Amino acid sequence: MTFAASTINVETHRLPFEAQHDGRFKGQSILSISQFNLDDLGYVFDVAEEFRLMVKRVGSLNLLRGYILANLFYEPSTRTSSSFLAAMQRLGGTAIPINEVRYSSVSKGESLPDTIRTLEAYADVIVLRHPEVGSAALAAQYARKPIINAGDGIGEHPTQALLDLFTILQERGGISGLTVTMLGDLKYGRTVHSLAKLLSLFDVQINYVSPEILRMPADLVSQLAAKGTRQAEYTDLREVLGATDILYVTRIQKERFTDPAEYDSVKDSYVITPEIMAQARPNMVLMHPLPRVGEISMDVDSDPRAAYFRQMEYGVYVRMALLALVLGKA
Amino acid sequence: MTFAASTINVETHRLPFEAQHDGRFKGQSILSISQFNLDDLGYVFDVAEEFRLMVKRVGSLNLLRGYILANLFYEPSTRTSSSFLAAMQRLGGTAIPINEVRYSSVSKGESLPDTIRTLEAYADVIVLRHPEVGSAALAAQYARKPIINAGDGIGEHPTQALLDLFTILQERGGISGLTVTMLGDLKYGRTVHSLAKLLSLFDVQINYVSPEILRMPADLVSQLAAKGTRQAEYTDLREVLGATDILYVTRIQKERFTDPAEYDSVKDSYVITPEIMAQARPNMVLMHPLPRVGEISMDVDSDPRAAYFRQMEYGVYVRMALLALVLGKA
Amino acid sequence: MTFAASTINVETHRLPFEAQHDGRFKGQSILSISQFNLDDLGYVFDVAEEFRLMVKRVGSLNLLRGYILANLFYEPSTRTSSSFLAAMQRLGGTAIPINEVRYSSVSKGESLPDTIRTLEAYADVIVLRHPEVGSAALAAQYARKPIINAGDGIGEHPTQALLDLFTILQERGGISGLTVTMLGDLKYGRTVHSLAKLLSLFDVQINYVSPEILRMPADLVSQLAAKGTRQAEYTDLREVLGATDILYVTRIQKERFTDPAEYDSVKDSYVITPEIMAQARPNMVLMHPLPRVGEISMDVDSDPRAAYFRQMEYGVYVRMALLALVLGKA
Repeated sequence: MTFAASTINVETHRLPFEAQHDGRFKGQSILSISQFNLDDLGYVFDVAEEFRLMVKRVGSLNLLRGYILANLFYEPSTRTSSSFLAAMQRLGGTAIPINEVRYSSVSKGESLPDTIRTLEAYADVIVLRHPEVGSAALAAQYARKPIINAGDGIGEHPTQALLDLFTILQERGGISGLTVTMLGDLKYGRTVHSLAKLLSLFDVQINYVSPEILRMPADLVSQLAAKGTRQAEYTDLREVLGATDILYVTRIQKERFTDPAEYDSVKDSYVITPEIMAQARPNMVLMHPLPRVGEISMDVDSDPRAAYFRQMEYGVYVRMALLALVLGKA
Repeated sequence: MTFAASTINVETHRLPFEAQHDGRFKGQSILSISQFNLDDLGYVFDVAEEFRLMVKRVGSLNLLRGYILANLFYEPSTRTSSSFLAAMQRLGGTAIPINEVRYSSVSKGESLPDTIRTLEAYADVIVLRHPEVGSAALAAQYARKPIINAGDGIGEHPTQALLDLFTILQERGGISGLTVTMLGDLKYGRTVHSLAKLLSLFDVQINYVSPEILRMPADLVSQLAAKGTRQAEYTDLREVLGATDILYVTRIQKERFTDPAEYDSVKDSYVITPEIMAQARPNMVLMHPLPRVGEISMDVDSDPRAAYFRQMEYGVYVRMALLALVLGKA
Repeated sequence: MTFAASTINVETHRLPFEAQHDGRFKGQSILSISQFNLDDLGYVFDVAEEFRLMVKRVGSLNLLRGYILANLFYEPSTRTSSSFLAAMQRLGGTAIPINEVRYSSVSKGESLPDTIRTLEAYADVIVLRHPEVGSAALAAQYARKPIINAGDGIGEHPTQALLDLFTILQERGGISGLTVTMLGDLKYGRTVHSLAKLLSLFDVQINYVSPEILRMPADLVSQLAAKGTRQAEYTDLREVLGATDILYVTRIQKERFTDPAEYDSVKDSYVITPEIMAQARPNMVLMHPLPRVGEISMDVDSDPRAAYFRQMEYGVYVRMALLALVLGKA
């Protein structure tokens, strides 16, 4: 698989950057991970890596100077909205942050298409977080300018999945051949669903570790099996910990359980502690989409394998890449 | 009327731009449309048109680089606040957005003059939206820096009226000689009151179409009649549709009616559909201040005569012009 | 004391600015006024004065171009958050404003250290306002990037104390030898506690004028006495008004009194009116941290000795200095 090969030495590797640009995302909306094939991923990640190196070297760029992002959040998400603001600012662009939608007249009856068509009169690109599935696609249908889906309810959150994959790439230098173990609430976790789909483009082994009632949805498992992805399900992390290259932890929400006693019985089995890390591979990468509420002990934070804060930073570079690409300026 | 003549070919027309600047708005506050005579309007719109062309060509300018706008909204208005932020950013300036006033200590007892005098210690120009009539004038009385009124309750919202007029100018190339029909709630609509006053500076015919209980206030009609403006009132749009150059639609709010049955009886008469558009002139311009909640069918949006989203964009150019003018940088 | 001497003519005085930079605050957090010795204060104020002159001359600088501030406010404070935004923008930097923390998922269980470590993945410096004492120190303990404490409950608000001192310096040209009178609620006022501590580094006389139940805490008075600061307590301003160089007024909050009648009996004694100003020295400086709610009559605002709005502006320069210093760019 050329993808893995071309990115193994991301630190030293320098593609003839300008040469390979073909503007394939210019003017397009980013709505779903299903838009991305292997070649697209390589393209986005090459741009993200270039931006990462340039930010390390010079802090910020001038690439999007004069461009305006409308950062439209119908539900609060400090983490994601701040990440997009940072991405735009690191590229020299500016933003109109719209976080108070629920208090505003916009929320009193104006349709999403009207709000989008108003904002595109002001801005060059719109990032949209909305509680309803399909809202980003609806917005893109009406917009003449690119929409980036920053989460549409239980639908998609493609930039999260892309940053997760970019994190694996950065931390391990490649993706093919890895064993990825997903832990926690695999039933409701939008994050792990999207990441699993993206991983199925590569030659990986995916393990699912969850309580019985929070298993990975059967149709998703079937879908990936049909594509040839090796998968296995467990309830106990210890069964696969030693063979795991990437451990992706998610939160188990108490309110998912009808019986509180059942929650209490499983919750401690899904908490990562220094003791668990002691049994993990020395180069294992520990990830979490954050926020965490106890699934990973703070005692683990100083472990060099704990990658979740670096994951936040990689997210900025991936979002920089997407913003630059849809604006035709990468 | 020289105004109409000088602006007929806005696309090809290039005034000796720098030459005519006399700094007449420098340091001034923009509080009311009554500040503007015909000459002022031509001046503001020439600058707005220049900015429109430059934004189309290069995206953003550097004119207000280093300048700071305090965007102070005591009540939420995503549309207006975003428009001013976009205007400032398109000119290369930056902004301090203050949208959460009601939750903040500023709202707990601090007087508007004190808040204004604090913000002018931070910023170069202040945009103010406040629920009380006269608040912008009060602010300007205490401020050493320019205040731009972005709506003071049922008082004025001058930048809305200016952008409405600029839209007519852009869409039709001139204003004199036009027949403008205003539709809907003409009693409470601050927008149509201000626009009618501005239009009375030109040689136009204004038609008012509304339910009996939502007629244009008699004193305003008298005031305009005294200035020689031709006006006529109707309850049925079909009586004047064929003769209309500009159709300005406003929202009819159910809560204005004491009898819900009365609302139900009139509401459909004031909804613009493709059928109504079929009977309108081929070059009629359909405007709405937005947000709309059903007064214009979404089926009309693709009609080239539907100008309400272009209206939003024109608003940015008008606000750019005002910001640059009061800062003495146009 | 060399400090007073070196700053007497701040307007004409020009230090060999670049030469004395030793990067002493680079990468450091600003948590408490106790971090600052006399030499540090002179250093910060020299930078602030330089910025003041440059802002007067050219509006904004380019010093922090490409740098990002995360402006994280867990409780609203329009004044302080706007001041930091202005400071960052005047230096050419940009900001991620995070004001809606209480509505966001960040507030639902995520620890402050996790939020900080996420934001430092996005930004270069973090300004933190948090209701809990010690929160800024906690944040700094986990952060790799500088934290600036913008108020941690009843703890510290060091930038307020520094701007107060800078105001005195600017208004009087020096500090040593002055008589500073603090008026109002001296028991709960974080502001006056910090300012008194800073003043104790200089050769000043401090007078405390307050109702009996709102006296300066005895331990603070003892602490300053031990350092040799001359202090005296009064209940009536008239006893010391004529000898006062700096009158620092604070708000008396009704809710501090168990007996409303007691509040009513004292409140008028602590209101500054033109009559009181008539008895004050011609070069007395009247300060207030704002917001005021009646402690200073608006009739006093036009008195040239009323320095509270200038105080707001000095605050921007002090915060510019701190931002530039911790980022190693002064």
